[in-house]
Amino acid sequence: MLGKCLETVRKAAPIVHSITNYVTVNDVANLMLACGASPIMADEPEEAAEITSISAGLYINLGTLNKSSIRAMFTAGARARELEKIILLDPVGAGASVLRTSTAAELIERIKPNIIRGNMSEIKAIFYGSGTTRGVDADIADTVTEEGLDAAVSLAKELSAKSGAIIVITGKIDLAAAPDKCFVMRNGVPEMSRITGTGCMLSGLTAAYAATNKEDILTASAAAVCLMGLAGETGKAAMTAGDGNAALRSRIIDAVYNIGAEALDGGARYEIR
Amino acid sequence: MLGKCLETVRKAAPIVHSITNYVTVNDVANLMLACGASPIMADEPEEAAEITSISAGLYINLGTLNKSSIRAMFTAGARARELEKIILLDPVGAGASVLRTSTAAELIERIKPNIIRGNMSEIKAIFYGSGTTRGVDADIADTVTEEGLDAAVSLAKELSAKSGAIIVITGKIDLAAAPDKCFVMRNGVPEMSRITGTGCMLSGLTAAYAATNKEDILTASAAAVCLMGLAGETGKAAMTAGDGNAALRSRIIDAVYNIGAEALDGGARYEIR
Amino acid sequence: MLGKCLETVRKAAPIVHSITNYVTVNDVANLMLACGASPIMADEPEEAAEITSISAGLYINLGTLNKSSIRAMFTAGARARELEKIILLDPVGAGASVLRTSTAAELIERIKPNIIRGNMSEIKAIFYGSGTTRGVDADIADTVTEEGLDAAVSLAKELSAKSGAIIVITGKIDLAAAPDKCFVMRNGVPEMSRITGTGCMLSGLTAAYAATNKEDILTASAAAVCLMGLAGETGKAAMTAGDGNAALRSRIIDAVYNIGAEALDGGARYEIR
Repeated sequence: MLGKCLETVRKAAPIVHSITNYVTVNDVANLMLACGASPIMADEPEEAAEITSISAGLYINLGTLNKSSIRAMFTAGARARELEKIILLDPVGAGASVLRTSTAAELIERIKPNIIRGNMSEIKAIFYGSGTTRGVDADIADTVTEEGLDAAVSLAKELSAKSGAIIVITGKIDLAAAPDKCFVMRNGVPEMSRITGTGCMLSGLTAAYAATNKEDILTASAAAVCLMGLAGETGKAAMTAGDGNAALRSRIIDAVYNIGAEALDGGARYEIR
Repeated sequence: MLGKCLETVRKAAPIVHSITNYVTVNDVANLMLACGASPIMADEPEEAAEITSISAGLYINLGTLNKSSIRAMFTAGARARELEKIILLDPVGAGASVLRTSTAAELIERIKPNIIRGNMSEIKAIFYGSGTTRGVDADIADTVTEEGLDAAVSLAKELSAKSGAIIVITGKIDLAAAPDKCFVMRNGVPEMSRITGTGCMLSGLTAAYAATNKEDILTASAAAVCLMGLAGETGKAAMTAGDGNAALRSRIIDAVYNIGAEALDGGARYEIR
Repeated sequence: MLGKCLETVRKAAPIVHSITNYVTVNDVANLMLACGASPIMADEPEEAAEITSISAGLYINLGTLNKSSIRAMFTAGARARELEKIILLDPVGAGASVLRTSTAAELIERIKPNIIRGNMSEIKAIFYGSGTTRGVDADIADTVTEEGLDAAVSLAKELSAKSGAIIVITGKIDLAAAPDKCFVMRNGVPEMSRITGTGCMLSGLTAAYAATNKEDILTASAAAVCLMGLAGETGKAAMTAGDGNAALRSRIIDAVYNIGAEALDGGARYEIR
């Protein structure tokens, strides 16, 4: 089921308009190319709507938002909504500043993203206005654990119902929730949190998967999350003495380049609640 | 002949002012350092002309253009023209938005770049105003094939005559054309299109080669194109199980770091028409 | 002694607000994560002070400064000063444009950085207003050699007294100076100058080390400089046929990820003058 999503992306080679941060943008682009998509980065407001028009989906990431790129996000978002293209929002650092939290909330209200992906601290910040003291990383108190899993699943479903978006919350355990159905996923390795942009990359991957599998974006999101986690496992297994987070970063991108439908279906570890 | 260009760059270590996109800029900088050049990235209009003044050449790339960087491009370009420094324009995504197409056309008219490098879709867009639906990638219909080669060579020569610039068109087969002479080059591997920025990197390399070999910028451009293609072949040959586009990207930069004049002359596959 | 600084950072996982250039920012982020810190990049003036407030330190790098990011630097700097957070300034390219030189000088005057790190050409430019013709690289005439070492140590101490900041000057030999004490360090390999951003990465590392070891920021700076040099040596030792600057870049980040306190204390080569 997940493998089918992967194959669809490789065949369609969807263009995904990405308005994302300058920290991790190169890895995002290479990961999206690795999965078979064709990313185009463009954050000048004057051309934003036009670029969205030629794209299959829109990926908005707040990692290094500024006044100009925020205008581009709203302009592109409005056009994507008008043309019924898939929109994914990654509210990086929501909770760390009023600008991030309020921009995320306003984007959700006005452009109605189809998917919202973040860590638990970011998701809580945009829906409950709570702050964080850990910058772009999740507070330890916000980690989804086996003990807190039931509550987290309920929360994700509730926020999906509230926002009308698929809610993807990643961490030790990953969740992808519609109002009445939630994928609980257990791929990935802890070392991924020591690489900048694994979340941004996953969001780009998810945007590409959902844009090409519009009939079931929940399953498409789950496929992207499992693929990214599996790529982390594959990358870690290939590490040798002296390797660190830089080697792992490259190997994760390479794993996405190489993993096929069968390997994804065989390696994905998830349950549906 | 091509190898001589390579050696000149290694000896001169030219400073190249690069106004380029934030997606691939790190790879561009490392590739330029690998070839022996010294890139400096600066896109604030207030300092653009001054940075051009201390440089041997100017590299303009439209990948993530914005209102501010466009002003820097014109300011730097005017100074480069005044001081007779080599200018290379890479019209990334021309055809994908009016802003990109018109900025490229206006730059060509006002600052008269010495070299224009793009894929066939971009080159057609800036000279014929045609659009593309493939974002920053070339339309499949625009691929230069053996069957369409004669026509493509004629077109490249014609556009060179029209613009006064060396026209470099890259794809399956690569062209570098003056009005009366065209290098047809066949190095490279298809996997290079799965890495973000191979075009941007090649443009930076070409700018460095031309800035240091001003007496024959056509040959310098051909040397850069063949070197980049050869680096792709070298990189691919070194790939092992599990490697993908991230590994190949690093190996291409490393190959440029290691390939010498003799290897370039031995490995370059080109004919002159 | 140096190893203790390393362990402190790994335990504290300090958030470091980084306003840095888009060329090398990804490597800076990964290197800071490798050392155990948690970088957050944010250069929008509206949120700059708020991000500084949740951080342990502030790292300002002028590599691709623009009008907007300069405002963010002053705003964040003022807040950092107010809250007594550690500020590190890396005046990339000072001397290459009036904007860079004057911004660096004004930042030093108004926000009083605790540490200033650059190559000798940049340091001379900001304190003596001299220009450079080598862009972001040091003039050969400015290389610190064994012959000129005494004079360089005196200069570094003098500039530290004048500015009230720890002065870190890196090159063939590295210096970290307080008014009355100077670390002279001899780790590192020449190939590091062929990688973009080794200086930027070191500055990020130093900011993290100093922010977490506030009681002795001179020693913390020396620890960061020696660690970076040692990582270069480790990376070079691991290079195999075909490797170049891209491979070395990844290996340096990986070395910082792997080197422990004992290895740092054993491998650091320095004297105190």
